[in-house]
Amino acid sequence: MPEEVRINPEKLTVFTARVMEKLGAPREDAELTAKILVAADLRGVESHGVAHLKMFYVRRIKLGIINLKPQSKLSSRFPTTASMDGDQGLGFVIGHHAMAEAIKRAEQYGSGFVAVRNSTHFGAGAYYAMMALKHDMIGISMTDSIPGVVAPGSRVPTVGTNPISVAIPAGKKPPFVLDMATSVVAGGKIEIAIRKGTSIPEGWVVDGDGKPVTDPTKRTRGSGGMLPLGGTPQLGAYKGFGLGVWVDIMTSILSGAVAPLLVQVKPGTEGNAGDHFFGAMRVDGFIPLEQFKNNMDNFIEAYEKVPTLPGFGTIRLPGGPEADLEAERRKNGIPLHPAVITALKELGTELGIEYNL
Amino acid sequence: MPEEVRINPEKLTVFTARVMEKLGAPREDAELTAKILVAADLRGVESHGVAHLKMFYVRRIKLGIINLKPQSKLSSRFPTTASMDGDQGLGFVIGHHAMAEAIKRAEQYGSGFVAVRNSTHFGAGAYYAMMALKHDMIGISMTDSIPGVVAPGSRVPTVGTNPISVAIPAGKKPPFVLDMATSVVAGGKIEIAIRKGTSIPEGWVVDGDGKPVTDPTKRTRGSGGMLPLGGTPQLGAYKGFGLGVWVDIMTSILSGAVAPLLVQVKPGTEGNAGDHFFGAMRVDGFIPLEQFKNNMDNFIEAYEKVPTLPGFGTIRLPGGPEADLEAERRKNGIPLHPAVITALKELGTELGIEYNL
Repeated sequence: MPEEVRINPEKLTVFTARVMEKLGAPREDAELTAKILVAADLRGVESHGVAHLKMFYVRRIKLGIINLKPQSKLSSRFPTTASMDGDQGLGFVIGHHAMAEAIKRAEQYGSGFVAVRNSTHFGAGAYYAMMALKHDMIGISMTDSIPGVVAPGSRVPTVGTNPISVAIPAGKKPPFVLDMATSVVAGGKIEIAIRKGTSIPEGWVVDGDGKPVTDPTKRTRGSGGMLPLGGTPQLGAYKGFGLGVWVDIMTSILSGAVAPLLVQVKPGTEGNAGDHFFGAMRVDGFIPLEQFKNNMDNFIEAYEKVPTLPGFGTIRLPGGPEADLEAERRKNGIPLHPAVITALKELGTELGIEYNL
Repeated sequence: MPEEVRINPEKLTVFTARVMEKLGAPREDAELTAKILVAADLRGVESHGVAHLKMFYVRRIKLGIINLKPQSKLSSRFPTTASMDGDQGLGFVIGHHAMAEAIKRAEQYGSGFVAVRNSTHFGAGAYYAMMALKHDMIGISMTDSIPGVVAPGSRVPTVGTNPISVAIPAGKKPPFVLDMATSVVAGGKIEIAIRKGTSIPEGWVVDGDGKPVTDPTKRTRGSGGMLPLGGTPQLGAYKGFGLGVWVDIMTSILSGAVAPLLVQVKPGTEGNAGDHFFGAMRVDGFIPLEQFKNNMDNFIEAYEKVPTLPGFGTIRLPGGPEADLEAERRKNGIPLHPAVITALKELGTELGIEYNL
């Protein structure tokens, strides 16, 4: 396997922003998009970073699925709740503004929520939830996605991998950051297996007869699909399915969109599921902030002392390992796969941007 | 196996309320407790209904773990967020008041949240989330519980089964009601297997070496435990664990309590984990109510048309089957196991209440 190259995160951000600007995004939006993509790479979520820039976002901009000059509209009847129409704008930009709106309302009232319709793919959900952290708030984000997951006992995909992200501040310890697909695995893990030519474990994907698929290239569109978290009914698949449906309701139905299950995708086009839900809650709306942060630190430290089985290291809470990785990558650079480097170079050539990473 | 007897739900509620009143609960609190317990039985959640009355609640009242005359205190600095000290009151009563407070705040501001410390076991979480439905709100409830679930790769239980409940109104269709432990199965399913003398599937419980336990009587306190939703790390156990920890934070740390992992249980006493989190959001804070309800109905109906595998019936969303069961049981009575009938009769004799069910 060819070796990965370490890339300076600042330079990567500048380059990515230039790509977006050359494609027609306003400078501020281009810089925001670049920042969010590189943030995913810094935290080790390569499936949602710059590897997606060319084949996913640039392609969809060219196809006209993404509107680079959206006129988003906010509608609200109560101080802490609102819905937003994203006008098919870049998910990063729409998501950032919607979460900022939720935070603004939480500043004043303790909590704030915005449901968004007509947006597009917003990358990794953790970014938006984590926007709450520097305001000493708890952040939450959800997004729907194109159906790829089957209900327990079903033959066809009806719900997306629909991730839930929650960010909660701590004191000296890294924040708690849960960012999970509600399927057994995120779609990116299957893409990686296809790219590497490896098999996938039983329990990730089934075919149209409900039989396990271990060759990831044997997935067929429209029949069978990924399994909801829990896997089988006996081991709790109804729960993963229920969580995925919850996300569909909070993102699509609550924002006034059509649920992905009901969207009729025109033959020859690709679907879009770009409905989100964002929320923020002030920690000091419940108890004093210092008490909360101290107790979070004590809680995280108590987990570090819990005995583990041979082969398992210290128990970390979600967000801990990602924070360590980010510190390391800020220092030593982000490792990019040669195929990703090639795609970035091609974008540079095509758009007349010097590749200097 | 002895046959179950069908019991009239109204009579069962009156009897249960009398038991609580005889034990010293104020009439209003006794009636509320009875209503919530019977509501669980009506929805088929027998593990959280009157079967628990004698051996769990009455016993804990006698042990002094539950305070029947609590002075709960609410503390709030922002319009939509508050914390409550439950003064070791009955979880049903404290939970009901805290959720009512969240709803009251949501009426005015769009959303409302209350984190509760120093309460006790509140029964089935769905009840509180469902309180939001008649106000056309989305309801959420969470509770911590005594650690019985191991982190991925750990030898000892550190987190409870920590359920998450979400209730969302529909139009003509039954509401969406998700009520799920964040472990593979709720503790009640293991209790049922012990009672029936049956084995449990691999993947529910592990011993202190991380090996699967299929004889439910072979569980040992303090070593090994139940598995988080997902089961193994490869199939997403980090997600179930992350959800369970999220619930611990929202219920215990956010309310100002000590997290169950850090509670030192005195030898010879039983632990109590009675911290909750409640929330409510106005649907019409986001989009018009009728639009939402129509789209919920369309969504639920679309699922009813999804093709299923042989042996599986129509796909129902969470809350649908429970609503059907409640209608049937309101008509035909609640089936109670003879052992539960015996326990109720014993309570009647002990407390001087006529058993007339």
